[in-house]
Amino acid sequence: MSQSFRVGIVGISGYGGGEALRLCATHPNFKVVYAAGESSAGSRLGDRYPALSGDLADLVIQKFDVDALPDLDVLFASLPTGESKPLLARVPAKTRIVDIGGDHRYVDGWTYGLSDVWPDRIRTATRIANPGCYPAATLTALAPLLAAKLIEPANIVVDAKSGVSGAGRGGGDSKFGFAEVNEDFAAYGLLKHTHMPEISATIKTIAGTESGLVFTPHLLPMTRGILATIYARSTSGATTEQCLAAARAFYEGRTFVRIGSAAPHTKWASGSNFAFLSYFADPTRNLVIALSAIDNLGKGAAGQAVQNANLMLGLPESAGLSNLPVWP
Amino acid sequence: MSQSFRVGIVGISGYGGGEALRLCATHPNFKVVYAAGESSAGSRLGDRYPALSGDLADLVIQKFDVDALPDLDVLFASLPTGESKPLLARVPAKTRIVDIGGDHRYVDGWTYGLSDVWPDRIRTATRIANPGCYPAATLTALAPLLAAKLIEPANIVVDAKSGVSGAGRGGGDSKFGFAEVNEDFAAYGLLKHTHMPEISATIKTIAGTESGLVFTPHLLPMTRGILATIYARSTSGATTEQCLAAARAFYEGRTFVRIGSAAPHTKWASGSNFAFLSYFADPTRNLVIALSAIDNLGKGAAGQAVQNANLMLGLPESAGLSNLPVWP
Amino acid sequence: MSQSFRVGIVGISGYGGGEALRLCATHPNFKVVYAAGESSAGSRLGDRYPALSGDLADLVIQKFDVDALPDLDVLFASLPTGESKPLLARVPAKTRIVDIGGDHRYVDGWTYGLSDVWPDRIRTATRIANPGCYPAATLTALAPLLAAKLIEPANIVVDAKSGVSGAGRGGGDSKFGFAEVNEDFAAYGLLKHTHMPEISATIKTIAGTESGLVFTPHLLPMTRGILATIYARSTSGATTEQCLAAARAFYEGRTFVRIGSAAPHTKWASGSNFAFLSYFADPTRNLVIALSAIDNLGKGAAGQAVQNANLMLGLPESAGLSNLPVWP
Amino acid sequence: MSQSFRVGIVGISGYGGGEALRLCATHPNFKVVYAAGESSAGSRLGDRYPALSGDLADLVIQKFDVDALPDLDVLFASLPTGESKPLLARVPAKTRIVDIGGDHRYVDGWTYGLSDVWPDRIRTATRIANPGCYPAATLTALAPLLAAKLIEPANIVVDAKSGVSGAGRGGGDSKFGFAEVNEDFAAYGLLKHTHMPEISATIKTIAGTESGLVFTPHLLPMTRGILATIYARSTSGATTEQCLAAARAFYEGRTFVRIGSAAPHTKWASGSNFAFLSYFADPTRNLVIALSAIDNLGKGAAGQAVQNANLMLGLPESAGLSNLPVWP
Repeated sequence: MSQSFRVGIVGISGYGGGEALRLCATHPNFKVVYAAGESSAGSRLGDRYPALSGDLADLVIQKFDVDALPDLDVLFASLPTGESKPLLARVPAKTRIVDIGGDHRYVDGWTYGLSDVWPDRIRTATRIANPGCYPAATLTALAPLLAAKLIEPANIVVDAKSGVSGAGRGGGDSKFGFAEVNEDFAAYGLLKHTHMPEISATIKTIAGTESGLVFTPHLLPMTRGILATIYARSTSGATTEQCLAAARAFYEGRTFVRIGSAAPHTKWASGSNFAFLSYFADPTRNLVIALSAIDNLGKGAAGQAVQNANLMLGLPESAGLSNLPVWP
Repeated sequence: MSQSFRVGIVGISGYGGGEALRLCATHPNFKVVYAAGESSAGSRLGDRYPALSGDLADLVIQKFDVDALPDLDVLFASLPTGESKPLLARVPAKTRIVDIGGDHRYVDGWTYGLSDVWPDRIRTATRIANPGCYPAATLTALAPLLAAKLIEPANIVVDAKSGVSGAGRGGGDSKFGFAEVNEDFAAYGLLKHTHMPEISATIKTIAGTESGLVFTPHLLPMTRGILATIYARSTSGATTEQCLAAARAFYEGRTFVRIGSAAPHTKWASGSNFAFLSYFADPTRNLVIALSAIDNLGKGAAGQAVQNANLMLGLPESAGLSNLPVWP
Repeated sequence: MSQSFRVGIVGISGYGGGEALRLCATHPNFKVVYAAGESSAGSRLGDRYPALSGDLADLVIQKFDVDALPDLDVLFASLPTGESKPLLARVPAKTRIVDIGGDHRYVDGWTYGLSDVWPDRIRTATRIANPGCYPAATLTALAPLLAAKLIEPANIVVDAKSGVSGAGRGGGDSKFGFAEVNEDFAAYGLLKHTHMPEISATIKTIAGTESGLVFTPHLLPMTRGILATIYARSTSGATTEQCLAAARAFYEGRTFVRIGSAAPHTKWASGSNFAFLSYFADPTRNLVIALSAIDNLGKGAAGQAVQNANLMLGLPESAGLSNLPVWP
Repeated sequence: MSQSFRVGIVGISGYGGGEALRLCATHPNFKVVYAAGESSAGSRLGDRYPALSGDLADLVIQKFDVDALPDLDVLFASLPTGESKPLLARVPAKTRIVDIGGDHRYVDGWTYGLSDVWPDRIRTATRIANPGCYPAATLTALAPLLAAKLIEPANIVVDAKSGVSGAGRGGGDSKFGFAEVNEDFAAYGLLKHTHMPEISATIKTIAGTESGLVFTPHLLPMTRGILATIYARSTSGATTEQCLAAARAFYEGRTFVRIGSAAPHTKWASGSNFAFLSYFADPTRNLVIALSAIDNLGKGAAGQAVQNANLMLGLPESAGLSNLPVWP
């Protein structure tokens, strides 16, 4: 008989928490017994997510009270930046945590959950800092090239584009309203985006030396999806085939990373935990272009979080994540 | 030499006010000398609308203070529901007003500004209540049929669909956010939408008898555009050709109403003041379907407002409105 | 140990066939052993659907040759209108067929697969004509009201709106291109849409008398989703609660039909086989408005097809269909 | 009295030709007397563009026969690649030509129509090769930096993103269909896009030395708009302010180029001929990021074409182009 783990989700009102709920609700080894959310507290889950049924639909959303948590095997936390540190510190040690929010990335005692790069570290962890959506897309593409020393860590330009759900739900700013986002495209956070240190730190961890990173995020007129277009300098004229081969070797046996010779589309990943990678090199110019397409709520947030939980709990890493992307 | 009128716009931060500004800025007879807005007060107009230049870009947005208005020939007001009555009552009589908001529709002393139906009434008015966006689409299509007594006023179903800009800008509710509106469609306000009395009252005015109206609005995943699909019962087996002929006769010489035998697309009207109408009848069933496509910010708000101002000021009614729709 | 059935899919290049593949690929009791498609013949499935892996990715798409079919338990056919009758007639009797296309609806020897209305008929069938997408949305909402004789069959207006994937993939007409569909909305097929006879025939089957149907389809600027807004005349002043109660009773125990008091959103159903229904009545006017939201490729095509196959094969009807909708 | 020029448009069925028609139809000095198009020949213009009226609506679209042209002052040509050279060679010398298509860029006897960079060259020309949409966006941003020698021509990465209308209308490939483009984003033409030589050649013209260019185009899920995000190496630690100042000086007095310190949005330019530029520099890394937002059918095609025609004809360069962008 299959194992069953008791799961809690904090931040259920947001898009990341909602996606965690969607995945956990049909996970063969998970039973969601606790859901907390600020703006939706007091509602039944079924009132917020009308496709739910049975006990799960009747579960009432709580205000998050860390001292009144039920007995949980795993807690998924998707809290606003700055709020989770003091709260999650008081969660009992036996409850594994995946923090989908950004507060515990590169914090002592927390393992950085880049699940396809460091699955073994995650298997033995109990506190996971889930990567940010942009870092997940970027680092999944860069890791094989850095590990194989095919590119210089000191010279990387990441031109990244994200769907609007990456900005979170709470906002309510008209700049994320349909009327203004539709038929619009722009860069933002030039030279100062919050995800840059996380990417830089991970590049340094993989490559062993400091990175020189330029990171420019853009807002796409779409709901889900990130494409990172990455320009790097190859160390010694790497070819397209060498880059693809390095990625295939690096991710051999990994379920959720797909490497191909065609430029990936974000829609290939929609609703799933997949990352699609491709590489294009011009060895005469020492140029490598790496492309990475993910669903920002999947591999970029809740999908990766469930994969991390699976690894921590000794489950098959694809448990509850086997659905194929929705296309078109 | 062409006449020049001094124009003020109140509610410049919203989509309706912004569209009024866009149209007035290039109107050959208008000079915008005053702009007021709640959330944008203190900004230069050029900071909010980066395509503006010259004096207009440097005009500083004010908090609306009705007692400190400059000398104006026309004031366009686009204020939140419920706020405009006491304020606009204090605007000097010599300043013509077009209230784009809903507070003065069917109020004594204010002329209902259905410009293509009652241009002569508007020419002699000084206070115009601009029709709501749904009523503008609906009534423009119904008026010829009602006037010609081709349909029964007592049996009209209006299934109307609007782009998101019709919900206004302030909102900031995630339900109008791109992530939730994109790839979604739903009805709202079933059996109780706020525009129903305005439509009913106008039908009664035209037809002379009470209307029996069902009005169902829907939210479209697009920024601009309204399509009204209207089901009516014909009085005596009207044909498609009779309906089209009635509309062509009713709107003869009117610049902004176009009647054709093809089902109209909202995109035909995008960015313009046009209304596109068509009619399909099944005389064997006494059925008439009327279709009306407009830009909710054009004929449904600011376009109609400028047309009304032109009529009041004795200008050609298409002054400042001659731009063609943007397609695709 | 779970049963395994050998599955074939014809029309894999189109959206309906592709969605059938997506669902069958992760169905716990299905093994896809045959895929045929006109425009994609010769490709590996994995080249067309990059998230596939293993044997399924390596399956080569065939030109459909009905005389060279492998041994199959079920065949899903999604062929262009007019092509399937002679071909499917030669499929061996032991191979169950679900025809997602329109050629066998109301044809002798074929069972109309409105799975939530007539599950028992389908359990004993071997040839299923899957409902069209508009009929699926419309009839699922109307059936309870007609069965309970709450509304008059003779007086029904269906104002239906569909995402673009409902128009199929082959087209390639610029009128379905992104540039022209985005920011556009229009009705089409006024008074003559191809789905009308199918809806009328089914209403007659349920109600026992002829229907008087007006059906107006519209094209939405979105990929997936249908909303049907249905106006009917109640026989004796039905209330909202009576309509909701009738629907709840009619669909008791049915997994995929959800009835609620809020107007349903198409996005609630996206990527799933659910139908969301609601009803709003004004008994003083004998008016009932029924609303139905589905994914046109789910309950409107491949989802319903898999549900029908499950019923024919004696499987739980939700096998392979338990994924929750993707939101937002 | 204002001058009036006789205008012809070839390629009226496409998006570029249609936009030229839209602009010419309300141009105060233009009278469109000839329209030709392959797929729409035989139709009235008013049947294709339902907002047109009067004589222009009644003009019948011709098959393009260069030997049967009426007397024209200007011809706008928007023909498929490869078709225009032999045909346009036979247009009478007195008829000025703006070739919106790509065949005459960097061809002897044709002036490259980068109107805001080289207006004086264009004033004396009679044959203009209008820039491609990506080059227009890219070069307008780069020209001031190259002219002021603030950046190295040898080290430029252009990450460009375009709306779908840039792919033209004829296509009909489902990859440009709404169902596949919506909620999708991808790069294409990696390391080999057709616009690269045009950009390289122009950089060389301005800078005097060979360029080292990486150009990656992407397809945006929107109809109109291009954003180019350009990464360059500064020669000696240029600051943001130095870049902005160089651009302001370079474009002083130019109507259609707007320089600001905020990252520009494509929607700022929608439906207009404006280009919005901004610059962000990190002098400690010799990094300059240039951003350019245009409407690909405006400054990227027909808007620039009309501006070029105005310059050739001695008209004010903004004649017929004074409409403000449509927002939101």
